[in-house]
Amino acid sequence: MTSVDELVAALPDGVVLTDPDGMEKYRFDWSRDQTAGKPLAVVRAEDAGQVQTTIRWAAAHDVPVVPRGAGSGLSGGSTAVDGGIVLSLERMNAVEIDTACQVAIAEPGAFNAEVKAAAAEHGLWYPPDPSSFQICSIGGNVATNAGGLCCVKYGVTTDYVLGLDVVLADGTLITLGGKRIKDVAGLPLLKLFVGSEGTLGIVTRAILRLVPQQGARSTLVATFATVRAAADAVVTMRSTMRPSMLELMDRPSINAVEDYQPMGLDRAAGALLIAQSDAPAAARTAEMETMRAACEAQGAEVFVTDDADEGEMFVQARRASFPALERRGSLLLEDVGAPVPLLPDLLDAIGAIAAKHDVEIPVVAHAGDGNTHPNIVYDAGDPDSEKRARQAFDEVMAAAIALGGTITGEHGVGRAKRGALPDQLGPDVMALTRRVKDALDPQGILNPGAGF
Amino acid sequence: MTSVDELVAALPDGVVLTDPDGMEKYRFDWSRDQTAGKPLAVVRAEDAGQVQTTIRWAAAHDVPVVPRGAGSGLSGGSTAVDGGIVLSLERMNAVEIDTACQVAIAEPGAFNAEVKAAAAEHGLWYPPDPSSFQICSIGGNVATNAGGLCCVKYGVTTDYVLGLDVVLADGTLITLGGKRIKDVAGLPLLKLFVGSEGTLGIVTRAILRLVPQQGARSTLVATFATVRAAADAVVTMRSTMRPSMLELMDRPSINAVEDYQPMGLDRAAGALLIAQSDAPAAARTAEMETMRAACEAQGAEVFVTDDADEGEMFVQARRASFPALERRGSLLLEDVGAPVPLLPDLLDAIGAIAAKHDVEIPVVAHAGDGNTHPNIVYDAGDPDSEKRARQAFDEVMAAAIALGGTITGEHGVGRAKRGALPDQLGPDVMALTRRVKDALDPQGILNPGAGF
Ligand SMILES: Cc1cc2nc3c(=O)[nH]c(=O)nc-3n(C[C@H](O)[C@H](O)[C@H](O)COP(=O)(O)OP(=O)(O)OC[C@H]3O[C@@H](n4cnc5c(N)ncnc54)[C@H](O)[C@@H]3O)c2cc1C
Ligand SMILES: Cc1cc2nc3c(=O)[nH]c(=O)nc-3n(C[C@H](O)[C@H](O)[C@H](O)COP(=O)(O)OP(=O)(O)OC[C@H]3O[C@@H](n4cnc5c(N)ncnc54)[C@H](O)[C@@H]3O)c2cc1C
Repeated sequence: MTSVDELVAALPDGVVLTDPDGMEKYRFDWSRDQTAGKPLAVVRAEDAGQVQTTIRWAAAHDVPVVPRGAGSGLSGGSTAVDGGIVLSLERMNAVEIDTACQVAIAEPGAFNAEVKAAAAEHGLWYPPDPSSFQICSIGGNVATNAGGLCCVKYGVTTDYVLGLDVVLADGTLITLGGKRIKDVAGLPLLKLFVGSEGTLGIVTRAILRLVPQQGARSTLVATFATVRAAADAVVTMRSTMRPSMLELMDRPSINAVEDYQPMGLDRAAGALLIAQSDAPAAARTAEMETMRAACEAQGAEVFVTDDADEGEMFVQARRASFPALERRGSLLLEDVGAPVPLLPDLLDAIGAIAAKHDVEIPVVAHAGDGNTHPNIVYDAGDPDSEKRARQAFDEVMAAAIALGGTITGEHGVGRAKRGALPDQLGPDVMALTRRVKDALDPQGILNPGAGF
Repeated sequence: MTSVDELVAALPDGVVLTDPDGMEKYRFDWSRDQTAGKPLAVVRAEDAGQVQTTIRWAAAHDVPVVPRGAGSGLSGGSTAVDGGIVLSLERMNAVEIDTACQVAIAEPGAFNAEVKAAAAEHGLWYPPDPSSFQICSIGGNVATNAGGLCCVKYGVTTDYVLGLDVVLADGTLITLGGKRIKDVAGLPLLKLFVGSEGTLGIVTRAILRLVPQQGARSTLVATFATVRAAADAVVTMRSTMRPSMLELMDRPSINAVEDYQPMGLDRAAGALLIAQSDAPAAARTAEMETMRAACEAQGAEVFVTDDADEGEMFVQARRASFPALERRGSLLLEDVGAPVPLLPDLLDAIGAIAAKHDVEIPVVAHAGDGNTHPNIVYDAGDPDSEKRARQAFDEVMAAAIALGGTITGEHGVGRAKRGALPDQLGPDVMALTRRVKDALDPQGILNPGAGF
């Protein structure tokens, strides 16, 4: 028996894939890294026990394991490596709601949207809402500490994780946290796994905090002459309030969306802000007025609606930006952020980099958090175009770091941004990172090449 | 030169204390552990450089270091150890507000109340509010992941920490996070330090997220015949809403406070709930009505006020419970929690343990989070009383664990609860804890004997 045959034999029929055709779609995430490796096998685990079996086998044979949720990642975190195992959690997708405790108990493969839907059946809400919520898994959300549109008011994934089951690099299954809300017993190991990009352990279950269903929302759409004006309005708003959504789209993004799926957005606008308030009644009116004033002070044309469907249409336009941009060429996906008051400077810097390298860099942003997605468009068939795009990619990250920002606000470092991480963290934090990794995964079998 | 003389010489005049009288008050926190050790010296560092000098000296001489904030801890986390250094951060207490970024940049010795006050000057708010907020430091809050009264709606310390400077066990000073709100670059090491009880590094600066000033609050005070009825009302409320405060006091606590500082509380009540809503206008009225209904369904007498001062008086009664109880004898301080729906069972179990061991266990609770403070009163001069109290102490923790709860919701394990931690975490998580500790502090000089 070869070693892979051993693994196949140790797991039920149909769990392990080894034929190259069947494995093909497990090689890539949405960053579509063409240098993705060829895995030895894909394991589609059905329970934590099978995850343990897989990890123990991998440890015994020193085989790398790439954990994989739904593969919607944008930084190559679940890209396959040569001779490794892809450990897919897609089959573990049960969701249970404990209404009394106001928590969801979710298996890692459950989609974010499935958790939201299950909670909604009980009048409860799981806030974290990556734009990809219909196609990304809770395990991936936990592993990347995913953000989204409502974070500006409601926080990110880590703020909602109360408990995790994790299979460690030696196959041990541990349980951290639980259904209690406050717990400081022992080191905060729970939080160490949220955002660890599959490099410290495999999440096999998550206990997620739910909150009462979100109230009615009003939506504001403001059209600005320039990106700078829109960003300045964001800074003004955020200095006094926390809207429940505050998104930005620049002109190239607006036009890409209109090309892809005409929605009646103003193609001539320099930038759009799409903002929401979910405050109750009079407070909502007040928040909308504050936002309107901030926009009008920047010369914007402002449209406000209390109609939920109409509001949702604009949010969908924002969410469509990524598939829309994909049609324009190959993309290098950025996720840089800066402190909110420096958002205008960050956007200026991105504009300057685009001009310098003669590349198109449409930007959408979770503007209220200072988190931007400049997506660099290039022609994969043209080496010069690709070269300029890669230079721009590096310079955008450098610009964010120079502003006291980050190379990744929510997508993770994955395999795409590893090169720039030391520039942000510096040698001492990199060394500490390595020490923690070595303590948890001394063989280095968990997602090597990703995260740091 | 003895080794301590070397340390004295390496630091400016007046930084190092070595006379026993001067050091006496640095030996204890509020748990007043009479077995506290006698330190070699107390270092009152004035800046991060002096912290580094102290740690490097300690590492070179293999001397334990106990970090100390304001010494308000309730679990012996900053209790001195024999032959060790007490590293006090009290002199590092600058606070700066960055209004544009909506963050406070605080040195660790700054009191929680000082950060709140500095933020309030700019219309901003730092929510975490341990009852001790006027006498506890931000460094201690970060090290314990402190909670408080508003957590039920606004979360705990870790939810507000955006950045930390930390001196590691080898004297390296690292900076984690910053003023950006979202950042997932690298492992989430920032979160690993929040709640690590001084065992992984010394916090020398914190960047804390601020939010817009809290709105007007209405206060509800409800008087119940029994603790169980009050707890049941809590469960009902929490299944549909998040009040901005939801505190419980049982009859012995009420009476202790009335003895200490008469406030007109109902001495005959089985339990009191003190709840607040800070929702805007009509929503606040609705929340108050929901809470009233939940209380009345349990037969409670309910009083509601929109008057801020009147409301604050009741909250002060709640905050006075700890000093009030201290007058009744020596205390063993509990901080156990359970999932919210099991709060009634946890309180029943505590009552049964008190009866069984014939000890008085007044309870106050951050009830909305399922976090209780049963404080076991005993006579330190009576070995039998102390023995019964210690048995009750262990059994209360065991009862919380049995309910899927925790031995500490916010105070930390410190030195007082180490014995029970393995019962909660189990051997695998204890082993992982040890591995992380060894990776960060291989000599074991940082707060040995505390935390785990
Ligand atoms: C159109 C679109 C919009 C998007 N919008 C957002 C957004 O608004 N906000 C945002 O944060 N992200 C966004 N993303 C990125 C992506 O959806 C998120 O990163 C998501 O969290 C990935 O989940 P996944 O299940 O697809 O994970 P994958 O892509 O499969 O994996 C992501 C990472 O998690 C690890 N991983 C996955 N499952 C586990 C597990 N069970 N245990 C341990 N490690 C695991 C993988 O190894 C990898 O490192 C978007 C993506 C797309 C395609
Ligand atoms: C009347 C009263 C009410 C209280 N109410 C609450 C409450 O509602 N909620 C709550 O959470 N707590 C409460 N506490 C407990 C206590 O105030 C908190 O634990 C507080 O966070 C401790 O802060 P401190 O500065 O006093 O820390 P200390 O007691 O000095 O130390 C606490 C721990 O933190 C470590 N530490 C301190 N500073 C640093 C640093 N700079 N770097 C690394 N480690 C450090 C110490 O080593 C120790 O392990 C209360 C205490 C009292 C006396």
